[in-house]
Amino acid sequence: MGPPIVKLFREEGAEVLADASTLIGATEPAEVLDRAGDIDVLVANLDLAAYAARVRDIDDDQWMAGFDAMVHPLMRLVRAAAQPMIDRGGGSIVALTSSSPLRRMRPQATSYVTARAAQNAFVRSAGHELAAHHVRVNAIAQNFVENETYYPPSIMENEKFRDRLKSEVPAQRLGTPRETAELALFLASDASTFTFGQVISLDGGWS
Amino acid sequence: MGPPIVKLFREEGAEVLADASTLIGATEPAEVLDRAGDIDVLVANLDLAAYAARVRDIDDDQWMAGFDAMVHPLMRLVRAAAQPMIDRGGGSIVALTSSSPLRRMRPQATSYVTARAAQNAFVRSAGHELAAHHVRVNAIAQNFVENETYYPPSIMENEKFRDRLKSEVPAQRLGTPRETAELALFLASDASTFTFGQVISLDGGWS
Amino acid sequence: MGPPIVKLFREEGAEVLADASTLIGATEPAEVLDRAGDIDVLVANLDLAAYAARVRDIDDDQWMAGFDAMVHPLMRLVRAAAQPMIDRGGGSIVALTSSSPLRRMRPQATSYVTARAAQNAFVRSAGHELAAHHVRVNAIAQNFVENETYYPPSIMENEKFRDRLKSEVPAQRLGTPRETAELALFLASDASTFTFGQVISLDGGWS
Amino acid sequence: MGPPIVKLFREEGAEVLADASTLIGATEPAEVLDRAGDIDVLVANLDLAAYAARVRDIDDDQWMAGFDAMVHPLMRLVRAAAQPMIDRGGGSIVALTSSSPLRRMRPQATSYVTARAAQNAFVRSAGHELAAHHVRVNAIAQNFVENETYYPPSIMENEKFRDRLKSEVPAQRLGTPRETAELALFLASDASTFTFGQVISLDGGWS
Repeated sequence: MGPPIVKLFREEGAEVLADASTLIGATEPAEVLDRAGDIDVLVANLDLAAYAARVRDIDDDQWMAGFDAMVHPLMRLVRAAAQPMIDRGGGSIVALTSSSPLRRMRPQATSYVTARAAQNAFVRSAGHELAAHHVRVNAIAQNFVENETYYPPSIMENEKFRDRLKSEVPAQRLGTPRETAELALFLASDASTFTFGQVISLDGGWS
Repeated sequence: MGPPIVKLFREEGAEVLADASTLIGATEPAEVLDRAGDIDVLVANLDLAAYAARVRDIDDDQWMAGFDAMVHPLMRLVRAAAQPMIDRGGGSIVALTSSSPLRRMRPQATSYVTARAAQNAFVRSAGHELAAHHVRVNAIAQNFVENETYYPPSIMENEKFRDRLKSEVPAQRLGTPRETAELALFLASDASTFTFGQVISLDGGWS
Repeated sequence: MGPPIVKLFREEGAEVLADASTLIGATEPAEVLDRAGDIDVLVANLDLAAYAARVRDIDDDQWMAGFDAMVHPLMRLVRAAAQPMIDRGGGSIVALTSSSPLRRMRPQATSYVTARAAQNAFVRSAGHELAAHHVRVNAIAQNFVENETYYPPSIMENEKFRDRLKSEVPAQRLGTPRETAELALFLASDASTFTFGQVISLDGGWS
Repeated sequence: MGPPIVKLFREEGAEVLADASTLIGATEPAEVLDRAGDIDVLVANLDLAAYAARVRDIDDDQWMAGFDAMVHPLMRLVRAAAQPMIDRGGGSIVALTSSSPLRRMRPQATSYVTARAAQNAFVRSAGHELAAHHVRVNAIAQNFVENETYYPPSIMENEKFRDRLKSEVPAQRLGTPRETAELALFLASDASTFTFGQVISLDGGWS
């Protein structure tokens, strides 16, 4: 989702610093923000290919990897961004998460869903706390949006998958990254100044 | 919320037909839509001053009035708008509802909360069904937004109310009608084409 | 669900007055309670065969019938039961509702889902208000429980339905009315004295 | 909550093995279960005094401690218990978690709430997966239940806290550990055999 968000934000006149590092180390999130300097908006797009395993087969390292890649760096990014935004009179933080915890998923997704739920809960709670300081923290909980990791061409051409889309997703199609970028723009902009701690689904009605 | 929505939509170049009737009769919603002709967007802003009563004191007529003013006309508006929108290839319906069912309210709000919950459930379910036809149905579940019915100047100057705002609403202020209009614009526009059946809170983080 | 609840409650030593009238008139709920005299527990089991229609085809009378049979009598029963229970020092009200509003349903269920959602919201709100008076109001939100109206033998022998059960219901079976009765007993008894305004799903993990 | 649960289960004739270790190491959960041998029920009561900090002040070690004490051992316990329960034809796992993620909390609870939300999401997802194997996984999401860690006598005698109870908790009192034990018993017993992946609030109506 990174490139289409960068593209749309630039089209709208924003100056964007894109960082594609994984931010897994304890100090990296703060360092990235230090390098960025004064910012009005932070888009936290933390991801990891979903680890699939039955509950009785979960591997400790794979389980931890989900928290390391998605949960802990989100906290550290918001922690580092909050004070400077407060000092500047406000700001907007947009996290890209998942709507998978909002509805029962196919089997073997427990590790992924648990980490994504932790992200969503963090956004809600941090969003409430920072609202008084004019810092908005909200999430785009997406699912069934086009991307090459989850939906490579081989999947998209698979008839069974297309049938599944039709029966599971009310919109009967995948979303486009542009649609995600549009919601990110709304949440980043002055059009959403009364929206705090919200986890907004973007999944064609799936959840 | 009507006037600021009309104003913003017109600023954005939309041709707006505003109707301020109560739409309580069984045929009125369809008649209003007939008069409007071809439309791309329907904003359904149905409201009634909240009836306050303890559960054991609920008056049958007042209870029914909430459903008559808020729930049944919403169904009838969407019912009448759906087929023409499908025939034209799609459209967007935005309902103004309330986030009061999403969180425990102060006492005596049961009648109001029940009717608002019915609205929100209708939006979710109708939104799922119509998604396949490119008709989006979504709701703005607002609370704590400035308006003269719920928050007249006498309330706003009341210190106790201002304290309540600070302790109950994370944003520590009321929203402005313009903020509601901005979310209505987002949901009406092509920026939200993958959003279906969503009830989006707009309440300064309250719910 | 009525007979198995009556049976289990009697096995547990309760004196049960079963009333099978529809309670659609405005005064009938209070009259039934008057006839019952002093009660410790009220089980409100209001139902109507689900009306199936696309949103654009909803019939006004069928739509209203759902509110008349399920929503308004629930309010009137709780309204009539509340004061006598408060006067006697407390009591428990158990509503049988549906988990269908908690998860996207198959198409054409919008009328049914909207009425059931109103029931659930009423239980939550009334439950909060009456908690201070030691009156508990809670709901069993069931789905996929055996009953001859929704799941007649013809359906149960249908292979497609059995496949649907396996893919949609984590438990891969229908629940038994006895299982509903057991949850009703728990909510009616002194084992649940800290549970107020809860809508508890009973649907084999479906919702 | 451990002792009252052990007491009630023993009163009901259960043979109970109580283990009070913290289970923080990666292999300890499986070792405890090995020592226990064949079991029908597992009650996972993982806890840690809530770490209070503003988001911008969260300490990495304290943040991790919440996941180490509450989230990871819950996964490891369920992982280790699942296969033997499946092999024996079924079983019931009851997790004690918190309803704090279900409603906006007082400030500074973000770390705690995030870890508790991960527990709740894990229970839902694991509960869905294991339902087909007759293994039930459910949670008691409690809050405002008497215990010496969160509510020592000094707090209980504090008038401000008693006022807060009255305004925030519909039941206007703390729950008793016995009330938690009763819900644990219900979820452990054959009275709840159609309940899977549920997170049931026990908080006097607070959430």
